[in-house]
Amino acid sequence: MKAAVAKKYGDPLVIEMVNVPKVGVGQCLVKIKASGVCHTDLHAVNGDWPIKSILPLIPGHEGVGEVVEVGLGVSDVKVGDRVGIPWLFSSCGTCEFCQTGRETICETATYGGYSVNGGYAEYCVADAKYVGKIPASLSYEAAAPIMCAGVTTYKALKQTKASPGQWVAIYGIGGLGHLAVQYAKAMGFKVVAVDIDDKKLELAQKYGADMVVNSTKVESGKFIKAQMGGVQGAIVTAVSKNSFREAYDAIKNGGSLVAVALPQGSIELPIFETVLKEIHITGSLVGTRKDLQEALDLAGQGKVKAEYVLDKLENINDIFNKMKSGEIIGRTVMQLT
Amino acid sequence: MKAAVAKKYGDPLVIEMVNVPKVGVGQCLVKIKASGVCHTDLHAVNGDWPIKSILPLIPGHEGVGEVVEVGLGVSDVKVGDRVGIPWLFSSCGTCEFCQTGRETICETATYGGYSVNGGYAEYCVADAKYVGKIPASLSYEAAAPIMCAGVTTYKALKQTKASPGQWVAIYGIGGLGHLAVQYAKAMGFKVVAVDIDDKKLELAQKYGADMVVNSTKVESGKFIKAQMGGVQGAIVTAVSKNSFREAYDAIKNGGSLVAVALPQGSIELPIFETVLKEIHITGSLVGTRKDLQEALDLAGQGKVKAEYVLDKLENINDIFNKMKSGEIIGRTVMQLT
Amino acid sequence: MKAAVAKKYGDPLVIEMVNVPKVGVGQCLVKIKASGVCHTDLHAVNGDWPIKSILPLIPGHEGVGEVVEVGLGVSDVKVGDRVGIPWLFSSCGTCEFCQTGRETICETATYGGYSVNGGYAEYCVADAKYVGKIPASLSYEAAAPIMCAGVTTYKALKQTKASPGQWVAIYGIGGLGHLAVQYAKAMGFKVVAVDIDDKKLELAQKYGADMVVNSTKVESGKFIKAQMGGVQGAIVTAVSKNSFREAYDAIKNGGSLVAVALPQGSIELPIFETVLKEIHITGSLVGTRKDLQEALDLAGQGKVKAEYVLDKLENINDIFNKMKSGEIIGRTVMQLT
Amino acid sequence: MKAAVAKKYGDPLVIEMVNVPKVGVGQCLVKIKASGVCHTDLHAVNGDWPIKSILPLIPGHEGVGEVVEVGLGVSDVKVGDRVGIPWLFSSCGTCEFCQTGRETICETATYGGYSVNGGYAEYCVADAKYVGKIPASLSYEAAAPIMCAGVTTYKALKQTKASPGQWVAIYGIGGLGHLAVQYAKAMGFKVVAVDIDDKKLELAQKYGADMVVNSTKVESGKFIKAQMGGVQGAIVTAVSKNSFREAYDAIKNGGSLVAVALPQGSIELPIFETVLKEIHITGSLVGTRKDLQEALDLAGQGKVKAEYVLDKLENINDIFNKMKSGEIIGRTVMQLT
Repeated sequence: MKAAVAKKYGDPLVIEMVNVPKVGVGQCLVKIKASGVCHTDLHAVNGDWPIKSILPLIPGHEGVGEVVEVGLGVSDVKVGDRVGIPWLFSSCGTCEFCQTGRETICETATYGGYSVNGGYAEYCVADAKYVGKIPASLSYEAAAPIMCAGVTTYKALKQTKASPGQWVAIYGIGGLGHLAVQYAKAMGFKVVAVDIDDKKLELAQKYGADMVVNSTKVESGKFIKAQMGGVQGAIVTAVSKNSFREAYDAIKNGGSLVAVALPQGSIELPIFETVLKEIHITGSLVGTRKDLQEALDLAGQGKVKAEYVLDKLENINDIFNKMKSGEIIGRTVMQLT
Repeated sequence: MKAAVAKKYGDPLVIEMVNVPKVGVGQCLVKIKASGVCHTDLHAVNGDWPIKSILPLIPGHEGVGEVVEVGLGVSDVKVGDRVGIPWLFSSCGTCEFCQTGRETICETATYGGYSVNGGYAEYCVADAKYVGKIPASLSYEAAAPIMCAGVTTYKALKQTKASPGQWVAIYGIGGLGHLAVQYAKAMGFKVVAVDIDDKKLELAQKYGADMVVNSTKVESGKFIKAQMGGVQGAIVTAVSKNSFREAYDAIKNGGSLVAVALPQGSIELPIFETVLKEIHITGSLVGTRKDLQEALDLAGQGKVKAEYVLDKLENINDIFNKMKSGEIIGRTVMQLT
Repeated sequence: MKAAVAKKYGDPLVIEMVNVPKVGVGQCLVKIKASGVCHTDLHAVNGDWPIKSILPLIPGHEGVGEVVEVGLGVSDVKVGDRVGIPWLFSSCGTCEFCQTGRETICETATYGGYSVNGGYAEYCVADAKYVGKIPASLSYEAAAPIMCAGVTTYKALKQTKASPGQWVAIYGIGGLGHLAVQYAKAMGFKVVAVDIDDKKLELAQKYGADMVVNSTKVESGKFIKAQMGGVQGAIVTAVSKNSFREAYDAIKNGGSLVAVALPQGSIELPIFETVLKEIHITGSLVGTRKDLQEALDLAGQGKVKAEYVLDKLENINDIFNKMKSGEIIGRTVMQLT
Repeated sequence: MKAAVAKKYGDPLVIEMVNVPKVGVGQCLVKIKASGVCHTDLHAVNGDWPIKSILPLIPGHEGVGEVVEVGLGVSDVKVGDRVGIPWLFSSCGTCEFCQTGRETICETATYGGYSVNGGYAEYCVADAKYVGKIPASLSYEAAAPIMCAGVTTYKALKQTKASPGQWVAIYGIGGLGHLAVQYAKAMGFKVVAVDIDDKKLELAQKYGADMVVNSTKVESGKFIKAQMGGVQGAIVTAVSKNSFREAYDAIKNGGSLVAVALPQGSIELPIFETVLKEIHITGSLVGTRKDLQEALDLAGQGKVKAEYVLDKLENINDIFNKMKSGEIIGRTVMQLT
């Protein structure tokens, strides 16, 4: 099968023919139809993070397609099912986190396109208990970005503890942020979108943002606080330390900053203000299978539509370059069949 | 009446005779019997914080005593009641925070011994709706430290979302920390106490800590993680930025760091680790009236006992000096009658 | 001023001229523009419930209009504000329920149009801290039904603990139910609407119900369970004991039945099934001021539109008769100016 | 091996020699040391419930002992481990309930001593992922009652949403109730114990109940409400429909009735009162593995001690007879080795 393979951190991916993976116990083989390109894939192939990906690696954790084979002991999917293979490739099922509905922080979880091979290929194996079921009303191309960008922002929004009618801020209107805007609207929130690029802010408005702020023109945090007294929650999807600080300033008493993006380094948290205003800061990593199914359902109902441009696997290095320069609007989805 | 008065930031308090305050609508006058000395009082008279206290100021937010007069429209207390006047002197009652049981972050709240006069005096007025009712089984001296040190740590423990049987860490075993240990035990948690002073760790053990760590001898965060896999929650009561970082390291996936102490400056929060482990950081400011009543009830049941040394108002500047040098074990309580 | 007055339980209301009420401390006087008619008003004037309304009584807890006078000590509203006077006319502000954001169950709360006079009149006094602020985008007529029917169902939906993408069932598509359908959609839920009248089910569909069930044609609970495995939550707005039992049958494991309607008598709860399926049953009474503001905000955003027919105060007894026979579609709103 | 076997509903158990069960994939074999006798076992062998147990059946879901063999793919336990086999013998791990930390309501769960053979035998197989780990400080005999009676009441107490310092009522001070009293105290609650037998109320007092009520002497619900304004939560462990009604009457506004016992029939729930007071009623079935581990930890810390009389397997029919007549104080534990 054709696959895009990372061989050395920092090098371009190599498109080559490799063996179709064998289906293990509890697994299924998925013929990939479409595969979304996530910023995390770039981190993976560059070896950016403290914990490195395997090498060689087939990246990709937004691969969706059709089940073409199931392994021993599989009862959760069958041949012909339309599924997606998420970042949370598998978790242990028995640690305290798995037992309490927090499988995303299982210490022995495996990650698709990171610690196991992912969806930048014509075929990919998956843990049958961890695939997402794609609603009939959703095309493969439209479903791919939900697998990571969608579920990640949907779950992050839950973490804000916002109620319908309350304001949330979305920092960064890229692949994740433009979906965050829509999930926020589907959950009944009022949305202020923040970016440094007017084109992305237009996208936010198209998808329902109640207010947009270009943070190169005003101090966004203070501006937001002046406008409506601050937000109950702010989601940071922008890979920029600055955004964290601005988002912090936008939060009203008792509100939450939810960190999703993974720039290198630290956030500086003012102690006095954090205590007196009882601000919450929390990291949020993708979502559980339950979150994923809810995120897919909302997309299936037509409430959330990924903005994507189609491309092909062969162009992955170009796609990465465009991603680096911040020029992609929405998500890039590679068609594989 | 006799009172200790701050006249200029940084100067010693002056003991002098001032007028007994007039009782306003909805207020009561309390004849102070005992008054705890809190580290916050030191911050107040030094003008340490971004938002300054009034001047001249009678400090003190752990004053307890007997109601001797009630103003117009008061139905919540009557003459003879044994009450305490907390840090949360009053709040607006109608903002979204007050409406949703989060009165501690009311933006127009007033603070005892900070934005209004407090309990370092023979008499003090209070908002009759905000005083704590002291259980009959609790002496005035034993009740005073509950009014701030007790309720603050009790509420902070709630913020950890720990379940009975889970581990929490208490950083700093001073006036707040030694009560935190006991509240944690009363809530069914396992407790690891961390301090730099073996005498304070002995106190923690006396009050039920399951493990103690002297953080001058080991890296406490890593040590704790090695011992039992980390804690569900860590409460930082030590006025030391270092403690925040160590406490952060002690937290297991999905756990919470609750900031209570108010050293100047910032916490550095590593983004990658915070997201991947879904760590929560939250500021916690004293407690609501409900929290206070629960904290007093637990003390009234004998489950929590403040360790205190008795002293008198005239010695307040000496008490402050001892506090600065960290040599107080437990709490100092001044007797006023 | 003109008012509709109940003088004896069970008798028709009398339209007569009475004095404009005096504005007390903390109160405001509202010139009523529109007043919704709620089924509860019928219970009030008939003396149906264990706790009776005052007599003589001006009913009405969906009165909306303009503030024309404010009493002493009022800072929350000013002359000219557009406000509504809800069922929760006032609460004590200091009991444990008020302190914890549960003011609807304050034991000394007063109820508009029940224990104090309400909005079936040209003027009505209100507690300035408890009125709802009407968004500029909402007409008085459209706002009236939100004051009770809207907030009640919105809060009941919160009680289901449903997540976006999950199913909820609305039993009874009358004045409350047709708003419940819309709030449920605004919160991201999938909705099955149940009624005995096809016209009302058409209304539910118009407002976005994903499925409708006529419970005279199938056993609704079993039917719903067969269709999608049951609902996470069921709201009963139908004044019919039967509906409770059917709704119970529609709930999946761990789900919630939320009782809103108040037929006389009891629900029979099967113990074995309730325990094994861990079913929750809860009563939900109107909503807090916070719930009300959120409910008004969602209506102001155009996500929820009350279906109403306009009428006038003089016809109130006719309106009651239509209500009794179940022939009203949506809500009746009386225009008063 | 020796086992007690139910062959026909309603017949006495037969003590006989049967084959030691084979260890399957993911399972372990436990040499049973002690086995608690639960009221549910009586329901099982009598075929009392709508869903019947298997026949022939070896009852028992409080069997504890030592792992003597592990099957293929087992990594959670090893030979020599001290474990217990709970009512929740196994669950699917992938349904929405298992995914969200609610495995007790998994629709394909299996139940120890009910839908699979249990601990009334010298050996028993267990799902290695579902056994409880017994703290070193706890004897087998002391651990057995925690496996069901302990975890069930501990989790039910969580369901009350009570805070430390608040009152809870325990209805029925038998095998479950006397542990409920202790767990409630370990969680910081105030406890009122209700029974019809003064000896059992003495037991409650010995274990820390703050108040006891003999419900043959006063109307317990009304009495409790008069004493302290009602309880935040009431746990019904008494197999008596009457207890449910009394417990309901004891609950204050916004409080919770948690049904644990399984008498035949229904609870009558007054609609008006339930709505106006926003009373919650919920069924609670045993506990998750996490709940179990917490319950065992609290017992391991010495905070909860089961009261038990030792007996032997051969006397099981006598034990059942004593249970029926209500004359057992605490729990009966059969020693098997």
